[in-house]
Amino acid sequence: MNDLADRVMGGELRALSRLLSLLERGEPAAAPAMERLDPQTGRAYTVGITGPPGVGKSTLVDRLTEHLRQLGLSVGILAVDPTSPFTGGALLGDRIRMQRHYLDAGVFIRSVATRGQSGGLPRIVKSMVRLLDAAGKDVVLVETVGVGQTELGIMGVADTVIVTMMPESGDAIQTLKAGVMEIADLYVINKADRDGANRMAAAVTAMLHMSDRSDGWNPPVLLTQAHANAGIAELWDSVGQHRSFLNDTGGLERRRLERRRQEFLESVQEEIYRRITRRLAADARLNQLLADIDGKQAEPYAAALGLLADEGLELLGGPAAL
Amino acid sequence: MNDLADRVMGGELRALSRLLSLLERGEPAAAPAMERLDPQTGRAYTVGITGPPGVGKSTLVDRLTEHLRQLGLSVGILAVDPTSPFTGGALLGDRIRMQRHYLDAGVFIRSVATRGQSGGLPRIVKSMVRLLDAAGKDVVLVETVGVGQTELGIMGVADTVIVTMMPESGDAIQTLKAGVMEIADLYVINKADRDGANRMAAAVTAMLHMSDRSDGWNPPVLLTQAHANAGIAELWDSVGQHRSFLNDTGGLERRRLERRRQEFLESVQEEIYRRITRRLAADARLNQLLADIDGKQAEPYAAALGLLADEGLELLGGPAAL
Repeated sequence: MNDLADRVMGGELRALSRLLSLLERGEPAAAPAMERLDPQTGRAYTVGITGPPGVGKSTLVDRLTEHLRQLGLSVGILAVDPTSPFTGGALLGDRIRMQRHYLDAGVFIRSVATRGQSGGLPRIVKSMVRLLDAAGKDVVLVETVGVGQTELGIMGVADTVIVTMMPESGDAIQTLKAGVMEIADLYVINKADRDGANRMAAAVTAMLHMSDRSDGWNPPVLLTQAHANAGIAELWDSVGQHRSFLNDTGGLERRRLERRRQEFLESVQEEIYRRITRRLAADARLNQLLADIDGKQAEPYAAALGLLADEGLELLGGPAAL
Repeated sequence: MNDLADRVMGGELRALSRLLSLLERGEPAAAPAMERLDPQTGRAYTVGITGPPGVGKSTLVDRLTEHLRQLGLSVGILAVDPTSPFTGGALLGDRIRMQRHYLDAGVFIRSVATRGQSGGLPRIVKSMVRLLDAAGKDVVLVETVGVGQTELGIMGVADTVIVTMMPESGDAIQTLKAGVMEIADLYVINKADRDGANRMAAAVTAMLHMSDRSDGWNPPVLLTQAHANAGIAELWDSVGQHRSFLNDTGGLERRRLERRRQEFLESVQEEIYRRITRRLAADARLNQLLADIDGKQAEPYAAALGLLADEGLELLGGPAAL
């Protein structure tokens, strides 16, 4: 696996893809390579782009990528698809317009299916960001669909969070209510040629004046027309201003430490859960407990507490088996 | 706590509120009462209402509640708010129109803040549904904001899932792509007096014809104008048809067993995580590990696997302390 890490550091795309796949499938085999790559991380700047469906996030990412390439920066893109847990395939229609970047060695694009994950942005996205960082990308863009709760996860992944909206969606205020105001470092009103863009910008600005960010940053509200390439350079300039602010205030270091700790805690949780569910198929006592839950001889919440209290973790295999 | 359970069964609203609060705060003290109430569950029919912000879900729930009351059915409502993890307060603006139901003893309304939860619908919502069931509600309505991944959680809570959309939102197809087609038992196009309602219904129907539900149910596409009370009775009739279908095919039993098992597994996961994070503050070795992660002497994912492999669960307190 150290070989894999070396190949990633050497710029081999196939090794990078392979390691991303190991992370995506939750394979512990990824750990040694991640361990070796870790000292190489901390150079890339990570930008999250979130917002409801249909506001033009993919076009925005496409144009931002073009702009970054013109600036001579290499780009890693993680497009997180809220894939159905049933069909299993990432729906990549939106990505087609990104095709031209596939021919550019300075751009690495990966769609991440989050099927089976219980919502939010899964731990693997944090690991994948660090991996693209170690692979030498200057900027990592993470695109996620989100409304309310889902969006909060992006804060745990990105240095700068861009929340994207559009006029006429009629739900600007509702979207803002749903916790978004706490996570947005920049607001983008895309499709700004449509009616109501200025009105929406004014409404967002007004709401910002009523709220207080504990870190002292005043999120700008920007107008873009991604399809016409308008406002993209200004958007990147604003990201740079936020980056400077974070650097000056120590906020970048704080965000990144918090992110590493969260990745650790989420990995512990995820791994314990993975082992429990794997053992369920094999352990007769756990199967009996599930049968009791089915038949109402056991209540789900009390049974969970009882499992941890009475039988201890032996049922889960004990320290050795775990 | 059995006293609390008895008072819930006796119809005491204060006891019900108290137990809901214990569940919301993740207090293990709720377990004995839940255990005692469990045999009383299985009578209520649970309907999930989900969809993006601004489509009129709250109005729909309001009018549906009115309709159910006219049919002589008692109603429990869980309004899941994707609350900011920072402000902590549920944002209840939308609920104001529900106020008139607060005076009706046959309606119990509860807003559930999901702050701090990592997205999706948390385990506590499943427990709360069972509690309202045990408290004698005929119908439990669970309203959630959702797009894509978030919405999938509602399937783990409801017998019938209603996915709500509106014309002009321009994102119908994107919403459908995001995994929703797999979870919707009924489609509602609300605000059907607006332009494009029939076109949208046709588009959804066309997509349905291309997909295959493994359970054999053909989800109907309904038009409503909740604010004008139009289509509400028809909506409830459709819920009834889905309920009959589930009863006839054994699907209801299957869904409910799966839900109980999930509630158990999620409780185990949640409880282990709760105990780990609680111990972090107290355990010097874990704190050293976090310091190593901060300083890049340890990589987050590898450190998590190492914690579980080398030190076993002793670090987490061992079976007894857990």
